[in-house]
Amino acid sequence: MGISKENLKGVILALLSSGFIGASFIIKKKGLRRAAATSGVRAGVGGYYYLLEPLWWLGMITMIVGEVANFIAYAFAPAVLVTPLGALSIIVSAVLAHFILKEKLHQLGILGCVMCIAGSIVIVIHAPQEHPITSVQEIWTMATQPAFLLYIGSVIVLVFILVFHFSPRCGHTNVLVFTGICSLTGSLSVMSVKALGTSLKLTFEGKNQLVYPETWFFMMVVATCVITQMNYLNKALDTFNTAVVSPIYYALFTTLTILASVIMFKDWDGQSGGAIVSEICGFIVVLSGTILLHVTKDFERSPSSRGSNSALLSPSLSVRLCSGSGEYKFAEEAVSPSGPICLRRQELY
Amino acid sequence: MGISKENLKGVILALLSSGFIGASFIIKKKGLRRAAATSGVRAGVGGYYYLLEPLWWLGMITMIVGEVANFIAYAFAPAVLVTPLGALSIIVSAVLAHFILKEKLHQLGILGCVMCIAGSIVIVIHAPQEHPITSVQEIWTMATQPAFLLYIGSVIVLVFILVFHFSPRCGHTNVLVFTGICSLTGSLSVMSVKALGTSLKLTFEGKNQLVYPETWFFMMVVATCVITQMNYLNKALDTFNTAVVSPIYYALFTTLTILASVIMFKDWDGQSGGAIVSEICGFIVVLSGTILLHVTKDFERSPSSRGSNSALLSPSLSVRLCSGSGEYKFAEEAVSPSGPICLRRQELY
Repeated sequence: MGISKENLKGVILALLSSGFIGASFIIKKKGLRRAAATSGVRAGVGGYYYLLEPLWWLGMITMIVGEVANFIAYAFAPAVLVTPLGALSIIVSAVLAHFILKEKLHQLGILGCVMCIAGSIVIVIHAPQEHPITSVQEIWTMATQPAFLLYIGSVIVLVFILVFHFSPRCGHTNVLVFTGICSLTGSLSVMSVKALGTSLKLTFEGKNQLVYPETWFFMMVVATCVITQMNYLNKALDTFNTAVVSPIYYALFTTLTILASVIMFKDWDGQSGGAIVSEICGFIVVLSGTILLHVTKDFERSPSSRGSNSALLSPSLSVRLCSGSGEYKFAEEAVSPSGPICLRRQELY
Repeated sequence: MGISKENLKGVILALLSSGFIGASFIIKKKGLRRAAATSGVRAGVGGYYYLLEPLWWLGMITMIVGEVANFIAYAFAPAVLVTPLGALSIIVSAVLAHFILKEKLHQLGILGCVMCIAGSIVIVIHAPQEHPITSVQEIWTMATQPAFLLYIGSVIVLVFILVFHFSPRCGHTNVLVFTGICSLTGSLSVMSVKALGTSLKLTFEGKNQLVYPETWFFMMVVATCVITQMNYLNKALDTFNTAVVSPIYYALFTTLTILASVIMFKDWDGQSGGAIVSEICGFIVVLSGTILLHVTKDFERSPSSRGSNSALLSPSLSVRLCSGSGEYKFAEEAVSPSGPICLRRQELY
C-alpha cells in the first residue's frame, strides 16, 4: 500500500484518538443523564451533580487519552494526514449515539459516515511520507523559510483585519468573521503543536531538545494561538447555530492547516500529481460527508428535542467553558473544563 | 498523472457521452413542453405533436451522438473506468435542469454532484491501463478462460433462478428481483459491447475482424443480453418507484460490470493494492453521490409536481418505449423510440 511505518503509527494514533474522543462524548452524556436522574437537577439549569458521577469522569479521562493520542500522532505523521482524520470522531459518536443513546441516525447520515470513511482511506493511501527530523533547529529552519514567513505574515494581517475591522462591524451577522479568525490561528496552532510534539518525541528518544530556546518559543506560540482560537470559537458558537458553525469551521480550519503544512513541511514535494489530486479529492469527500452528517442530524428532530442530540456537538460547545466566557447556558454539553484538553477542538470541528 | 493515451481517449469520450446524454434530456424536455404549448395536448395524454417539434429531434440526435461516444469509449478504455463515469450524465442533466428548466436543485443535491465529480477523478487517476488487443480471437480467449466461464455460468444460473423461481413469487414485492436480472445480464452486455467495439475499432484500423465468426457471435450476445436487460428494467420501473430502482440498479449494475471486467480483462493485474482500494473508494463515493442526488430530488417537490422533474429520470423511463411494453403512461418522458439507443441505460441507471 506504500504506507510508511511512521505514517502507520500516526494513522493508528489518529484513529485511536478519534475513537476515544468520539466515545468520550457518549460516556459523558450517559454520566450527565444518570446524574440528572439521581439528583433531579439537570446540569443545564445549574446543577453540578455530574461531578459526583463516576461515568462522567470516565468520559473525561477517555477524552484526555484521545487528546494525548492526537498530540502524539502529529509527532509521527504529516498534518495533511492527521488533521482530516479528525472527522472520524464525529462518526464514532454518531454511531455510538445511535446504538447506546438511541439517538436515531438518519439514513443520509449513514451515507455521510460511509463517505467520511471512503475519503479517509483515499487520504491515508496517498499521504506523503514525513522527512525524518533530527532536531528542533531543523523545524525552526522550516518555520523561518521565506514562503512560510509569508504565510505567517498573511495570517497575522488577516487576523488583525478581521479582529479590528470586521469583528465590530459584522461579526454578529456574518459567520465567516469569527470562524475565519479561529481557522487562521488554528492552522498556526497545529504547526506549532507539531513542532512541539516532534521536539518532545526527540527528547524522549534521548536527544534532549528542551535545552534549545526554539522549543520554548514553540510552546509559547501554541499557548497564544490556542487561546486566541478558543476565544473566537466561543464567540462564533455563542452567536451562531452550532450546525452552521461546525462544518464551516471544519472546512476552513482543515484547508488552512493543509495549506500551512504543505508550505512549511513541503509535504507535497516529490509526490506525483495524481497523489496530490487524490488527496484533495479525499479531503473534499470527507468534508462532504461531514456536512451531510451535520445537515441531516436535524432532519428528524424537532427544535425542542435538540438538547438530546448535543453529544455530537459537545466538542465545540465544551470550548465555552474553557475560555470562561460560557454562561452555562448549555452546561450539560460543556464537559471539558481544563485548558489543554480543548486543544483538539481544532481537529474536530 | 500516469494516465495513458488510450485511457485519456476513453475518458474524453465517456465525458462527452455523459455531456451529450445529460443535455439530450433537457433539450427533449424543452421540445415536449413547447409541443404541448403549441398543440395544447400533452404527450402524457396521448399526443404525438412532439414529433413535429424540431427541438425534440435535436434532443434525439444529441442522445444518439452520446450513445455512440459511449460505445466507442469502451473500445479504448477499460470498463472499470468507463462504466462508473456514466453517473456524470445525471449531474449534467441535474445542473442543466436547474438553470434551463428552472427545476431547483436541492443543496444536498449539489453536494451529491461534488461527490460524483470527486469520486470520478479518483477513479480516473487510478484506472488500469488496457492491454493492447490485436484481434477478436484474443478477446475470445479471454472470454473463454475458466474464471470468466465460471462467471458466465453463475450469471446464467442466477438469472434463471431469479426469472423462474423468484420472479413469479416476489417479483412485484421485492425490488431486487427485477433489478438483479437487469444487472446480471447488463454486466454481460457491457463485456460483449466492449468485445464488439474493439473488433470494430480494429476493423476501422484496417484489420478486418468481420471475417471471424467470433465477431458475429459477440454481436448476437449483445442483442440477447440487451433485450433481456431492457425487458426486466421495464418491469422493474413499471412495478417500483424510479427513485428506488435507479440507485439500486446503478449500484448493482456497476459493481457486477466491474467484477466481470476484472475477471475477463484482468484489469487489476499489475496494479498496486493502493490503486485498487482507491478505485473502490472512488466508486463508493460516486455511488453515494448518486444516491444523494436521487434521494434529495424529491425533498422540495410535492408529489403532484413530480412530472416536472422527470428529465432526470427519463433515461430509465425511455426504456419503456423501447421494449414496447410502455403504455404511454409517462410518454412525456418516454423519448427514445429506437432500439440501439437504449443500450446505454446500463451505464446511466
